[in-house]
Amino acid sequence: MFRILAGRALTPEGWQDGVEVAVGDDGRIVSVAPGHGAAADRTVPVLLPAVANLHSHTFQRAMAGLAERRGPAGRDSFWTWRAVMYRFLDLLDPDDVEAVAAMAFVEMLEAGYAAVAEFHYLHHAPGGAAYADPAELAGRIAAAAATARIGLTLAPVLYRRGGFDGAPLAGGQQRFGTTRDGFARLVEASGRHLAALPADAGLAVAPHSLRACAIDDVGFAAELLPQRPVHIHVAEQEAEVEACLAATGARPVAHLIDRLAVDGRWCLIHATHMTPQETAALARSGAVAGLCPVTEANLGDGIFAGAAFAGHGGCFGVGTDSNIRISLTEELRQLEYSQRLRERARVVLASAERSAGRFVHAQALAGGAAALGRDSGALAPGLWADMVALDPDRFAGSGAGDGLLDGWIFTGSDAAVTDVWSAGRHAVRDGRHVARAAVARRYRGVVERLAGRL
Amino acid sequence: MFRILAGRALTPEGWQDGVEVAVGDDGRIVSVAPGHGAAADRTVPVLLPAVANLHSHTFQRAMAGLAERRGPAGRDSFWTWRAVMYRFLDLLDPDDVEAVAAMAFVEMLEAGYAAVAEFHYLHHAPGGAAYADPAELAGRIAAAAATARIGLTLAPVLYRRGGFDGAPLAGGQQRFGTTRDGFARLVEASGRHLAALPADAGLAVAPHSLRACAIDDVGFAAELLPQRPVHIHVAEQEAEVEACLAATGARPVAHLIDRLAVDGRWCLIHATHMTPQETAALARSGAVAGLCPVTEANLGDGIFAGAAFAGHGGCFGVGTDSNIRISLTEELRQLEYSQRLRERARVVLASAERSAGRFVHAQALAGGAAALGRDSGALAPGLWADMVALDPDRFAGSGAGDGLLDGWIFTGSDAAVTDVWSAGRHAVRDGRHVARAAVARRYRGVVERLAGRL
Repeated sequence: MFRILAGRALTPEGWQDGVEVAVGDDGRIVSVAPGHGAAADRTVPVLLPAVANLHSHTFQRAMAGLAERRGPAGRDSFWTWRAVMYRFLDLLDPDDVEAVAAMAFVEMLEAGYAAVAEFHYLHHAPGGAAYADPAELAGRIAAAAATARIGLTLAPVLYRRGGFDGAPLAGGQQRFGTTRDGFARLVEASGRHLAALPADAGLAVAPHSLRACAIDDVGFAAELLPQRPVHIHVAEQEAEVEACLAATGARPVAHLIDRLAVDGRWCLIHATHMTPQETAALARSGAVAGLCPVTEANLGDGIFAGAAFAGHGGCFGVGTDSNIRISLTEELRQLEYSQRLRERARVVLASAERSAGRFVHAQALAGGAAALGRDSGALAPGLWADMVALDPDRFAGSGAGDGLLDGWIFTGSDAAVTDVWSAGRHAVRDGRHVARAAVARRYRGVVERLAGRL
Repeated sequence: MFRILAGRALTPEGWQDGVEVAVGDDGRIVSVAPGHGAAADRTVPVLLPAVANLHSHTFQRAMAGLAERRGPAGRDSFWTWRAVMYRFLDLLDPDDVEAVAAMAFVEMLEAGYAAVAEFHYLHHAPGGAAYADPAELAGRIAAAAATARIGLTLAPVLYRRGGFDGAPLAGGQQRFGTTRDGFARLVEASGRHLAALPADAGLAVAPHSLRACAIDDVGFAAELLPQRPVHIHVAEQEAEVEACLAATGARPVAHLIDRLAVDGRWCLIHATHMTPQETAALARSGAVAGLCPVTEANLGDGIFAGAAFAGHGGCFGVGTDSNIRISLTEELRQLEYSQRLRERARVVLASAERSAGRFVHAQALAGGAAALGRDSGALAPGLWADMVALDPDRFAGSGAGDGLLDGWIFTGSDAAVTDVWSAGRHAVRDGRHVARAAVARRYRGVVERLAGRL
């Protein structure tokens, strides 16, 4: 048991001054009550529930910044970026995967995330040969999470084909593919690796996309773990929407909702290109929209219909996706700023009661917890103690009520994060991850070797 | 004289390893040559020319984060934000103006800017009464620049009317207005305050906008200092374009270019809403487009026609404008990301030779120097020694050639800035401004007093 005394905290009852949070040895919050500090192990000026990062491909962190130049064809797109990513995939061995994941997890914690859903599609060796343990690389992700102390929801990916035309997997994609049976074995073996992690770790399943899985394969994956989250990429690119329409007669989001029981277990990643009818149907389904604003801007995907989706009562959260830049404040800021540029208005994602900063933060808390299948998202007894402490002298704003979140998110940065606990594990102290030095040293070695071979 | 030895530097001849930069006691670069380090006063891993921030209203830093909630009318816009800003204006006294400006300048330097163009329209006391010295507040900006050691181009603003309809100035605007004669006296008095600053400080003139100045007033201001830059807000809002069209028969950018000799002396701030013909004409004029991507996203203004403007050979730079968030990397990143979202493509502002990071950085260097009328923008003998040193372990990417700028801008942040020199003045050391503690203490006192009265 340990106790944190917060000068100001965001509780389920709203903002409160002088709050003591007690955390049990199992990593769950025991109590949240007015505090005096006599018994506190640590005093912090501001304490918030920490957001879960609902979408990450950690290995892509090692190619961050390497694809910001024009391809030979002149103008670039998502698809030329993907070509660089596939070349990169030929180089990564299991040690590399673990080192890069550990670095990305450390950076996520330092940015104020307490947990992550790793959308994990890198299963086999380059060329497609299976490892002796089919979940070798899932095990490496789990080991990296243990090193970094992050809360992990591991989502093994079902990847069946090269496109809507049923093309066989080629090039970098050969590392992704499994049969249905192979996927079931992979999920089971991944679960064994997670058993070595603390009890807040868990599985999800991730049919990759309608490009890579026919609708029946998506349904198969979703039924494999009936109590756990289902993640799928959908409608990120216009070309993908056109191909889906041509192959199935329906647009991707409509196709999913028409054919499968999409509900609160589901997290639809991106959902960038929807008709107004699809937007309303997705909101009503209870599924989480998994938005990745920084990556979507980097890839030029387009802008989610945020105002309409929120107007229909939809729930969303945020993910770092390609990990081109790992920053929670920037993810939330870019989310709202993309909406403002789309709508040519200010304060789009907000309500009469909640400022823009409070609104996107509250959605990210709820959406992240739902998408990870994680008991988190609030400072409340019984939930995992996912908490972040801030130094309010590191950002502007009023510091009063929701103004504190407006200040952190719109004027500040990761630099304000002083402490992060993930299910009670104290991973960041005084702004720095406790294992940063060793993790960064190992990561640098990997990146230097890869840079010489790209 | 002092010497910096850089492991890698961006010189007019491109990237070079092992470069020694010698800086004279007058703050200008004496030589840039292959270096051995025997005589170096400081060794840094990476040295770049520092960008000039071409558009700032420093006083707005004190309201950063205070206007991110909905107004009483529900949906917000630029105009509701402006209403908050005008209320705020009633509270600021000269000491406040100086304290807030000093804080903003310190933050700009820590973000990697060496100089700033302050678009200064706060001339009088609340209610519009003149101070004994008409340039009292200009003097406070100059004093803040001296405290912060930033390179200052002060642009006193001519503000004549409340709108295209010639409405008299009301409310907060009463602090802005002058006659033509009053403006001439104000510019002259401002020049006397600048005489107390180092020799790199200078004046510009700033007719506020076509809203606030009829075209003849714009011309009057532009002729006042024929060798110095002319700054004007233009076409930020669609409502402003409509009002200009109704009042003058022309859209704002077309109206300016048709009626006045717009050339390389001019910096047109925002220029968000242009026809393709206006975009081409602006590029051909040689004027700098003064883009403020973070503020323009915060205000929901819309997205500049970057690809077309760059295609016509136009020159742009970046400004922190409202100072909602002061971050050079984020300004450059948001610039390119807004373009990608507009075009639904990657790597929009780039060329066959230059990556996205290098391209926007090169434009910001050239555009900033031109807009400030400042001998800067490169590590070259004779220019002011505006330089920034980076720690490449604080961002990802290859670190090789332009990849270094892609890494800093797309994966990194201000946290990578270790040192900044402005005309040779060493303002930031080890990531921290040399006067931060005292400036921040004074700023906090001001903000706390204002917060209680807003």
